[in-house]
Amino acid sequence: MSERLVVIGGDAAGMSAASQARRLKGPGELEIVAFERGHFSSYSACGIPYWVGGDVGTRDELIARSPEEHRERAIGLRMRTEVTEVDVPGQRVLARDLEAGTETWTGFDKLVIATGARPKRPALPGIDAPGVHGVQTLDDGQALLDSLEGTPGRRAVVVGAGYIGVEMAEALLNRGYEVTLLHRGEQPMATLDPDMGRLVHRAMDGLGITTVASAAATKILTGEDGRVRAVATDAAEYPADVVVLGMGVVPETSLARAAGLPLGAHGGLLTDLAMRVRGHENIWAGGDCVEVLDLVSGRERYVPLGTHANKHGQVIGANVGGGYATFPGVVGTAVSKVCDLEIARTGLREKDAREVGLRFVTVTVESTSRAGYYPGAAPMTVKMLAERRTGRLLGVQIVGREGAGKRVDIAAVALTAGMTVEAMTALDLGYAPPFSPVWDPVLVAARKATAAVRAAG
Amino acid sequence: MSERLVVIGGDAAGMSAASQARRLKGPGELEIVAFERGHFSSYSACGIPYWVGGDVGTRDELIARSPEEHRERAIGLRMRTEVTEVDVPGQRVLARDLEAGTETWTGFDKLVIATGARPKRPALPGIDAPGVHGVQTLDDGQALLDSLEGTPGRRAVVVGAGYIGVEMAEALLNRGYEVTLLHRGEQPMATLDPDMGRLVHRAMDGLGITTVASAAATKILTGEDGRVRAVATDAAEYPADVVVLGMGVVPETSLARAAGLPLGAHGGLLTDLAMRVRGHENIWAGGDCVEVLDLVSGRERYVPLGTHANKHGQVIGANVGGGYATFPGVVGTAVSKVCDLEIARTGLREKDAREVGLRFVTVTVESTSRAGYYPGAAPMTVKMLAERRTGRLLGVQIVGREGAGKRVDIAAVALTAGMTVEAMTALDLGYAPPFSPVWDPVLVAARKATAAVRAAG
Repeated sequence: MSERLVVIGGDAAGMSAASQARRLKGPGELEIVAFERGHFSSYSACGIPYWVGGDVGTRDELIARSPEEHRERAIGLRMRTEVTEVDVPGQRVLARDLEAGTETWTGFDKLVIATGARPKRPALPGIDAPGVHGVQTLDDGQALLDSLEGTPGRRAVVVGAGYIGVEMAEALLNRGYEVTLLHRGEQPMATLDPDMGRLVHRAMDGLGITTVASAAATKILTGEDGRVRAVATDAAEYPADVVVLGMGVVPETSLARAAGLPLGAHGGLLTDLAMRVRGHENIWAGGDCVEVLDLVSGRERYVPLGTHANKHGQVIGANVGGGYATFPGVVGTAVSKVCDLEIARTGLREKDAREVGLRFVTVTVESTSRAGYYPGAAPMTVKMLAERRTGRLLGVQIVGREGAGKRVDIAAVALTAGMTVEAMTALDLGYAPPFSPVWDPVLVAARKATAAVRAAG
Repeated sequence: MSERLVVIGGDAAGMSAASQARRLKGPGELEIVAFERGHFSSYSACGIPYWVGGDVGTRDELIARSPEEHRERAIGLRMRTEVTEVDVPGQRVLARDLEAGTETWTGFDKLVIATGARPKRPALPGIDAPGVHGVQTLDDGQALLDSLEGTPGRRAVVVGAGYIGVEMAEALLNRGYEVTLLHRGEQPMATLDPDMGRLVHRAMDGLGITTVASAAATKILTGEDGRVRAVATDAAEYPADVVVLGMGVVPETSLARAAGLPLGAHGGLLTDLAMRVRGHENIWAGGDCVEVLDLVSGRERYVPLGTHANKHGQVIGANVGGGYATFPGVVGTAVSKVCDLEIARTGLREKDAREVGLRFVTVTVESTSRAGYYPGAAPMTVKMLAERRTGRLLGVQIVGREGAGKRVDIAAVALTAGMTVEAMTALDLGYAPPFSPVWDPVLVAARKATAAVRAAG
């Protein structure tokens, strides 16, 4: 007897789940119906800044698999169709065809919720004015590009200095804009400790990006034509021909909330290790709409990243398809770049560690990406947190140039394995002058952290 | 009462040990005397190919610390002084001043043996002819550079296709030479499995390096002036204006052997985890003259690498200085490059695994260093070995371009932690389009290896 799998959301998590389930079960065993409210399926939202910035030539390059390609694999993907209600006891979803305006109920045996995230969009006066853009979807990216083409002005204001904010600052800089980055905190990149954020701030200054701290936007000012002309804070006005909102995202879980499914402190769906929604045998959830377990702190966190979404999809698909897989959690790894500046982090920041009651030491070291005498050796700063007494690695933050960012993977694996910083000092990492100093910067930090743990007692 | 530490060998392991011991104990507590037979101390032998190739401007850039700098730190380093005998029961060493020709006995309370390695130099006819060069020491590098300047010809033959061989091939190519690389095996880079070595072979062809397999040099042919004119194998003659020997090195343990110290199957000194020579309470050894424990196979291996030598020195210095540290072993990580080709390995090759009785699966995947749509995304091939049944990671080999080589660190840490390939599929590695596809190539390999382990049963 054939079962029906319904998938809500046609991007990374949902379509990975559908594809993996299809690999395990043919159309005779499992019917798959997927609903996507937008115009595109399975695309790389993380690539949008590079498309806007001109590094990626066309929108289509960001699309991993088109709706037609999914359909060829016997996945019934319905585009521009929004699920408006999930009837959990009745095992059915109500979907509205956004073109035709019609609504239909579809029953399911198994359900995957992959509704993603929506950008934070504060209710500021003028926020809906032409020239103010989010960059969450391909449609958003296209609208921004159209807006840039339609305006002769070259002043851009980016609101928010997280990953999206700094990546969009780079994109606009690459397009020849004069970029001002407004952020509310003490330093940009609040995913780093402030001391490391300061390095990012300085480097962005060097790149010609004007970064303004403690600057909460209070109002979007418009011109006579109704288009944005400036962003106001309590302290000043920043002239803008275009404004990009990069204030982060929140889980898109309004459907799940209405259906009575369990949500966590961050508003994301709560699942078990198999990505099954807690308390619901036949409902899975993954991607930017769920919370994930942070393996270092033991707390649920909200980490909307395409790489997790893809893993969730694989795990869900395996389980839905009759196999077995789990997603054990994250350690909080992220990497980003602004021009040639590379920024990376994994594990806990100082405030994260304090929040869960951990006592720790921190060390910061300066080193280089290659042997000091080798051409292209670039400075990098590595900060490391280790637990007092046990010496367990708690987190690493890296700010540097070429070759700095992906070194965070060393720490990500060490965190997953629960290594101490002393054990890390003996790690057999790849060494040759074009790749590393004879002591890799991560090892230098581990040595210093080992000494700090001993000294702290 | 002051003790005396004698160190034999003034390079990485010896001088790291001396420096670390000095940090822990002042001159009032510990006298340090070190003997070095050459002209230089504490230099990066790994950097020699880049100096010869012109990437590094001067010899002095490769010197981390000069004899004078060591002496300023109260380390009595005697240059051009060769230890010719170790009297273990008498706790003294006999040293010959190579300039003055005098010999003196020096007593020790503690001894560090860091005599390094010597290049394999087969007893071929003509091997001592002008124009035939090893590249083990700075003196060797200088002699090669002088030889290149003294010869108008532009044909170079490199004998041996291990790390030194391929790095010297690049160096000579960069200097405008026509380079022929002769090697005895089926493929170059015998530290990789032959299927991965084939990729290196092809890539070197593409770079304009003529690589000749199954080509054991049998004779060096000289011209009327006595200088090298060709290298002969059983099958052919390869014209050469200069010849570089890159056939690997063996532990320099003749002193240790004469002193009756324990040597292993590879001819290296055997130590305990604290780098103490087995059975000798007051003698330590480290660097290229010792064998190390391979944590994956459980066997002793010979892995002459500057990064290990530095770690050994740190560990020895800590223990000699009254602290405590250990060197647990290696997982066999190495990384190298030839022009823009990056080559890396860690853990066991197929033949290593078979040799210790392991049953395994292998998978090979093609991926890219960055998101496929991001500029500069370069192809890379990742081969992974996993144990049957347990799924434990056994080894990884990578051949690719920019961004490929240092990815081996992910596997190096996973090997150290004893991870299974299935656990690796959940690793939270840094992802952003400029740094990685959404599934890092190492994760793609881990997924495929997980499936292969399941299929093999």
